[in-house]
Amino acid sequence: MPRQTSRDLRNESRFEVLHALFTLGPSTRQEIAKHTGLSTATVATLVTQFLAEGVLRIATVEQNTVGRPYERLTIDPDRGRILGIDVAETYVDATVYDVTLGPLGHGEVALDEHENDTEYVVNGIVRAIEAAVEASGTERERIIGAGVSMPGQVRPDAGVSVFAPNWDWHDVRIEELLEQRLGISVYVDNPLKAVALSEMWFGVGRVTKSMAVVNLGTGVGAGIAIDGTLLRGSANNAGEWGHTLLQLDGRQCRCGRRGCVEAYLGVHGLEMSLAEIAPKHPALRQPLQRGFVDAVAEGLVADDPALVELARRTSHYLAAALGDLVNLLNIPHITLTGWTTAALADWLIPAVREELPDHVLPGSLPGLAVEASRVPGNPVALGMAAFTLERFLGDLGLASPASTPPPRRRLRAPA
Amino acid sequence: MPRQTSRDLRNESRFEVLHALFTLGPSTRQEIAKHTGLSTATVATLVTQFLAEGVLRIATVEQNTVGRPYERLTIDPDRGRILGIDVAETYVDATVYDVTLGPLGHGEVALDEHENDTEYVVNGIVRAIEAAVEASGTERERIIGAGVSMPGQVRPDAGVSVFAPNWDWHDVRIEELLEQRLGISVYVDNPLKAVALSEMWFGVGRVTKSMAVVNLGTGVGAGIAIDGTLLRGSANNAGEWGHTLLQLDGRQCRCGRRGCVEAYLGVHGLEMSLAEIAPKHPALRQPLQRGFVDAVAEGLVADDPALVELARRTSHYLAAALGDLVNLLNIPHITLTGWTTAALADWLIPAVREELPDHVLPGSLPGLAVEASRVPGNPVALGMAAFTLERFLGDLGLASPASTPPPRRRLRAPA
Repeated sequence: MPRQTSRDLRNESRFEVLHALFTLGPSTRQEIAKHTGLSTATVATLVTQFLAEGVLRIATVEQNTVGRPYERLTIDPDRGRILGIDVAETYVDATVYDVTLGPLGHGEVALDEHENDTEYVVNGIVRAIEAAVEASGTERERIIGAGVSMPGQVRPDAGVSVFAPNWDWHDVRIEELLEQRLGISVYVDNPLKAVALSEMWFGVGRVTKSMAVVNLGTGVGAGIAIDGTLLRGSANNAGEWGHTLLQLDGRQCRCGRRGCVEAYLGVHGLEMSLAEIAPKHPALRQPLQRGFVDAVAEGLVADDPALVELARRTSHYLAAALGDLVNLLNIPHITLTGWTTAALADWLIPAVREELPDHVLPGSLPGLAVEASRVPGNPVALGMAAFTLERFLGDLGLASPASTPPPRRRLRAPA
Repeated sequence: MPRQTSRDLRNESRFEVLHALFTLGPSTRQEIAKHTGLSTATVATLVTQFLAEGVLRIATVEQNTVGRPYERLTIDPDRGRILGIDVAETYVDATVYDVTLGPLGHGEVALDEHENDTEYVVNGIVRAIEAAVEASGTERERIIGAGVSMPGQVRPDAGVSVFAPNWDWHDVRIEELLEQRLGISVYVDNPLKAVALSEMWFGVGRVTKSMAVVNLGTGVGAGIAIDGTLLRGSANNAGEWGHTLLQLDGRQCRCGRRGCVEAYLGVHGLEMSLAEIAPKHPALRQPLQRGFVDAVAEGLVADDPALVELARRTSHYLAAALGDLVNLLNIPHITLTGWTTAALADWLIPAVREELPDHVLPGSLPGLAVEASRVPGNPVALGMAAFTLERFLGDLGLASPASTPPPRRRLRAPA
């Protein structure tokens, strides 16, 4: 990918300083220098720039009995607003954040998973954004940019949805379509990259630099970070763990292949498993996938035997498929996210933890952790807002100190 | 891993200069500067150091009609000798290289795959080395170090064979055992890391920085490089593609799990496949795995129908399992290596190329290449020699210019 990655930006001193403030909260110049490993002089210079640009402000001043007063610095949440949008097959979820990535307001629009028209989807995105902007009381001109996660294969450098299997989309110029409708800068990426970034910033990334964030929903996949760098692959297509094999020549997957992990662990895969156990189970009559997952969670609370068997089989599939991820990558940390996780984690995670050692090579087992993600809110929307903020911070060096928001083109990828 | 990786060293200017000379052949200072992106002044300084250390020598001097003469520099092959050793379940293969990694002599010892005694294996390694040293006419005191690849899980930082499933080895301090026997510095690593490094230096690494080198032999696995960095994982255990699933709850694998790729694509997996097709096939009476693979190759030339069916099934398994690797990592290049590849590539590779598009997501298919490795000789031994050379070059800054070889402890990992 020609575009700068998270790591490229993070390696820059400006970004290090700001990311330290995200991690530490309000801090002195000395604390920032200690955390980043930058010299105190470098930190002081950068802080002076950031104060002039209005990115940082002085939170408190502490006066010791001797010496100079200590200023604690904080990112100025009022520097601008950022939109993070999670577009899935069944819904659009939009959130307005301040530049510390604190959520200010939220909007959601249901999508009919059987509709695949571009305008239908774009309208859904615009309506969700309008609802979020209204709920947060945000003035439009204060929005720095919008990060939009699109399902399937996305080329962030071209702003294109290359392929969305559920909609049969090919090479839709989604960034341009949305910018024309919204009048704000848009950055598009893939939800796996977004969940990985939100985990790196606000989840286990605080304790480990290598992790897989496994998303379980309509589709399944893994956002992967190795030594602090997002794994993107040569066409931004890495992480398609959902399309690795569980069973050669097994169940038909919607990608066209047979036996993929997604055909067993995507929501439709769970429906197929339940149909094998109890073909007339009432949960299978739910018209929408979310209704099905909710019905499964409710039935498990009531010890419905067919659903207990469904949870057992699903845990077996999940333990085996996570074992593959660990054996190939030797990653120390897996977090689970997505709405299937949200509904079923209490059943799946203990069973997976118990079975996983049967699937993992002895050398990759010590210290291995599997847990539900603790990233608050919608991690896809949050990750897209974080990407947008990274772009904004990376571009700030070019912006005039007084410009809020920066010129719209600043957020576009270099040609 | 606390130890420096290939990339850590490569990022150093000294290493960049030497690696440029490996790639370019004899070159002027200007050509090195252009290739590395270093300034001409930096290159000139480093070259002066290397000439004083005896690492480089002047190959030719060209006199133009105007201006100063141009010196072409080359790595002095006589600076020392390096051993690269490939220890597998069935053999030890040792090669003596000069410091340009040109092979000078070779020794091989067969191992009985049913023996697992430490002393038996160490004796085999020592005998193979002695044969290689003798064949190359090398004086012992000129040997800079030996890189030894051990099967299974290896911790290079501790010099330990953590786990070798075929031998049921646990935490064998192999580096220390070999150093005591040989009186030279030893560096141990895993064959998947070695094949990846040799491919990065002498194979497709010259055209791409992201690749998987898939080894097919008794065991199977993948050496993976992402953007020029070897994927090691948190315990040097990454790349165990042979222990990802082909068939949930399928054939018993020697790792203890059922359905792993290795149970279908390792040599014993091929034997099991043939036993399913033709249980009394004469190839199954070969006592050693190498004999079996050779018998299969010979029978395929003669169009033996059971073996043609074996090749068909094996290609199907291989295409599916490579599809997983591509879908997860979105890597553009796969090279196949190992002795099964050497014997059967003509049957497997065309069939895999034909079937692979059925297993790979559309976005990861454009530009995808699958080919037999063109790295000459034994790529595991070559990769281990390259690791040893990397260590030597990384340590050279500490060595006195006249010392050949450097003090033995120099090659050990920092504590």
